[in-house]
Amino acid sequence: MKETFAIGVDYGTESGRAVLVSLQNGIEIADHVVLYPHGVIDEYLPDSNIRLEPGWALQHPADYVYVLEIALPEIIKISGIDPSQIIGIGVDFTSCTMLPVDERGVPLCYQAELREKPHSWVKLWKHHAAQYKATRLNEVAVKRGEEFLKRYGGKISSEWMLPKIWQTYDEAPDIFNKANRFVEAGDWIVFQLTNNLLKNSCAAGYKSIWHKQEGYPDKEFFKELDPGLENLIETKLWGGVYPLGTKAGELTEQMAQLTGLEPGTAVAVGIIDAHASVPAMGVVEPGKMVLAMGTSICHMLLDSKEVHVDGISGVVEDGIIEGLYGYEAGQPAAGDIFAWYVDQAVPTYVQEAANEAGVSVYHWLEMRASELKPGESGLLALDWWNGNRSTLVDADLSGLLLGVTLQTKPQEIYRALLESTAFGTRKVIDTFQNSGVMVDELYACGGLSNKNKLLMQIYADVNNRMIKIADSNHTPAIGAAMFGAVAAGKANGGFENIIDAAKKMSRIKKEVIKPDPANVQVYEKLYKEYNKLYYYFGRENKLMKNLREIQSSQISQLNQK
Amino acid sequence: MKETFAIGVDYGTESGRAVLVSLQNGIEIADHVVLYPHGVIDEYLPDSNIRLEPGWALQHPADYVYVLEIALPEIIKISGIDPSQIIGIGVDFTSCTMLPVDERGVPLCYQAELREKPHSWVKLWKHHAAQYKATRLNEVAVKRGEEFLKRYGGKISSEWMLPKIWQTYDEAPDIFNKANRFVEAGDWIVFQLTNNLLKNSCAAGYKSIWHKQEGYPDKEFFKELDPGLENLIETKLWGGVYPLGTKAGELTEQMAQLTGLEPGTAVAVGIIDAHASVPAMGVVEPGKMVLAMGTSICHMLLDSKEVHVDGISGVVEDGIIEGLYGYEAGQPAAGDIFAWYVDQAVPTYVQEAANEAGVSVYHWLEMRASELKPGESGLLALDWWNGNRSTLVDADLSGLLLGVTLQTKPQEIYRALLESTAFGTRKVIDTFQNSGVMVDELYACGGLSNKNKLLMQIYADVNNRMIKIADSNHTPAIGAAMFGAVAAGKANGGFENIIDAAKKMSRIKKEVIKPDPANVQVYEKLYKEYNKLYYYFGRENKLMKNLREIQSSQISQLNQK
Repeated sequence: MKETFAIGVDYGTESGRAVLVSLQNGIEIADHVVLYPHGVIDEYLPDSNIRLEPGWALQHPADYVYVLEIALPEIIKISGIDPSQIIGIGVDFTSCTMLPVDERGVPLCYQAELREKPHSWVKLWKHHAAQYKATRLNEVAVKRGEEFLKRYGGKISSEWMLPKIWQTYDEAPDIFNKANRFVEAGDWIVFQLTNNLLKNSCAAGYKSIWHKQEGYPDKEFFKELDPGLENLIETKLWGGVYPLGTKAGELTEQMAQLTGLEPGTAVAVGIIDAHASVPAMGVVEPGKMVLAMGTSICHMLLDSKEVHVDGISGVVEDGIIEGLYGYEAGQPAAGDIFAWYVDQAVPTYVQEAANEAGVSVYHWLEMRASELKPGESGLLALDWWNGNRSTLVDADLSGLLLGVTLQTKPQEIYRALLESTAFGTRKVIDTFQNSGVMVDELYACGGLSNKNKLLMQIYADVNNRMIKIADSNHTPAIGAAMFGAVAAGKANGGFENIIDAAKKMSRIKKEVIKPDPANVQVYEKLYKEYNKLYYYFGRENKLMKNLREIQSSQISQLNQK
Repeated sequence: MKETFAIGVDYGTESGRAVLVSLQNGIEIADHVVLYPHGVIDEYLPDSNIRLEPGWALQHPADYVYVLEIALPEIIKISGIDPSQIIGIGVDFTSCTMLPVDERGVPLCYQAELREKPHSWVKLWKHHAAQYKATRLNEVAVKRGEEFLKRYGGKISSEWMLPKIWQTYDEAPDIFNKANRFVEAGDWIVFQLTNNLLKNSCAAGYKSIWHKQEGYPDKEFFKELDPGLENLIETKLWGGVYPLGTKAGELTEQMAQLTGLEPGTAVAVGIIDAHASVPAMGVVEPGKMVLAMGTSICHMLLDSKEVHVDGISGVVEDGIIEGLYGYEAGQPAAGDIFAWYVDQAVPTYVQEAANEAGVSVYHWLEMRASELKPGESGLLALDWWNGNRSTLVDADLSGLLLGVTLQTKPQEIYRALLESTAFGTRKVIDTFQNSGVMVDELYACGGLSNKNKLLMQIYADVNNRMIKIADSNHTPAIGAAMFGAVAAGKANGGFENIIDAAKKMSRIKKEVIKPDPANVQVYEKLYKEYNKLYYYFGRENKLMKNLREIQSSQISQLNQK
């Protein structure tokens, strides 16, 4: 039989990437990245003076289609593979990244009369301006004793589908009314490939409060949020939910022409980007936590039992691997914090030193920060530059740097930022373990795991656990391709199920990162102090929220002028 | 009678400056700044691999003499004034900046066998490594119920003379034993000019626990600190204390040759730099607080009564103006924080934008920060980059920045840093007022008051008080020159006393900074949040101290290797 291949298309925060992978051994044949032309829209709407308020983060749906147009022909060209050998396509996407569409599935922001309305655009996962809706939704759910809350650690996040829809309903009723559906961007891009707009069980389970047995929250709940929302599911989130690996449809003629693939190629339903990494790393059993480390961090963990862990984003039956409960937690910024630091706070002399040494600023900082011992800088940071997603579930929290003196140097700040995200992960792990869900080993994938050795050592030291690292820069895309191969089916050269695909295709580096006992000891002390900050700002008071309120009131005054 | 002139020499943290001023109207005829060749020594001893621990800050005494050699001839040259018309010289100096000298007054660090010993050098005011001695000294004083504590707000600072001497005694007994005296650098430089080493009442009162009626703490107190310190005053701090304006002596032949001045010119005893600003601004009565704003901020205030204000650095009878009680408080970093920010955390794109606009980075940041409203950034900072001097009196406290998000911009951070120092000053003012010492108006002098309009507006808004600004860039030097003219005496074309000098020579700008009511309101809210941080980190817990301890233990391990 001829060698078969699949394509995974991975949609991240800043760019999309297509990877062509062999189904015989998981080896990557070709890949191509495309930056979104409009990037993250968080200051002004495209071609407009309309300023967005703090917490807003939008995207342009045309950027997603552009990724397909550019990346798919490119990887076929690079690889030289005959398109007929490419039997499946999978798509993974950030979530909940969502948009309102009309009855033909066309984004509302494409309508000329709506393009100046912020709510007509794609709301990116890290759009945090619906926090007040999430807060209210949680209050109502608590009051009613809604069982679903327990599956989500007691709190629904502002990043998810329902707060985002509710914000639209309240702030832009015209957009809400004109929307035929609100859809996950991952499902929407599968719709672009196949003409079928199907909801995938992963995004629905983790981000839309959908449950395999119990479905969505009931009408009474929605009615209590607002009488006008009573029929929200039937009117704005309608349609069936399909398990991972389901064939959503086949590549349309039009898309085949656009991409150079064969019409009729199987396309799987979408999956959340981080979750696709789990089978791609060969993790198909309990006790192994996968850290998908990029702009943000997603923690995924499998277990044979369903436990409700306070402050942990979600547990979904069959959510990642069939037959197991998939747990998800997350930190809404990691690489994003380091990038913020490099863009907004690294002085010129560091830039010049890096240029002189012929390395990137990141690499220069990493080299200098590696010379420091834990605690040597006297600095400590809270990693909440983009709020806290898991354990506190509060988008209004913000970043903090403490211990700064007139002697503080850039490499010290950089190291403190790396450490802060490791402490954030430790907090997540502690929370799981305190609830009886064990974490024995860490598996890391994503850009940061390959690029930053110091970071991985810090994670091993802070968490006192071994870390295995993906032997790929494109782990989610490999996972997506695996699901594409499952959608194609064994008869067509694909796989029967995702476990078979994982056994054949997953790839881990030989070198394992081990904790250094001396560092573990010092980090234990620093983590105690981190915990004090965590409780003080995260639970004991509203200081960060008060600042956010003052900020919002000042900016809304400016907008009124 | 011919017009007469005096010279003020002002010794700051990074540089020294001489100013030639007319005694008829206070107009500055010439000035010249000299950077200290060795600057602040806080990493390695000069020409050595010996690394200093955190908190250390030393200087080289030769740098002070170098200032005289360069600056005095230069201002005579620039002005074209006949040296015979220059009737007096005054010197103001940072304090407590102190050094050990031998029986001839020669600094111990000039001895070849001692130059590799950190304790032989000048300890700069902001040397903070004696904090543990200050802490112990305060404990003993509290236990013994020492009355003197009340005059210093209940706490002796690590920046002052006795903790610094005690640190030397403990860590370098050889240096302690070899020291004939420990002297204020300001008194030492007057000694260089006149061959008379006299202690001035200002530095002795504010920094050496000396009192006009009661003298120094008694032997029993020193004995309880350590039996070896019982006779500390007689053996290491001996000599009389002389009031401000006293003629310390006349310019020596050797110094006259070196500087181009006439031998026999009157030289006044030294004064602390900030304190010299008070008469220079014409402030000779209660209710007017002088802010000397440079690398650090000194707050000076006169009152007719002696009140003991908790956490306020000191009250000294006749300490600034005869017949009144002079109160001093301070923030150990302000301009230093902004300079740290510009040096260590301003990104290249800001540098480039400033270059393109043809302005300094400071000015660019100020322009952009001026466009922001109070609270608009969502940021809040604690101004403790160099510890807290007044109200908390704790050098182990450190800086904090809170509210950072992925959208945070440099001008926002810059503004938050400016605001943090204004909140710090507000805290000082509130503390005075709560003890019944009233502050009605603010008078600002020093580099920051002239250079940074936004900063002054923020101070007016945060403190809800009018601010008058010195019409000079060299206010302390003008004050020092006034004391030089008092030392020369009225008969020689000088003055009878400092009040007469102040009436004739002080100069204030016509434009007054007034608070903006809308900003006052928002800052009131932000100050509430600042206060929460202040109490939490300053009083409720030891988080910052714990970090400092971990840091010190890691660095001392490195030094042992």
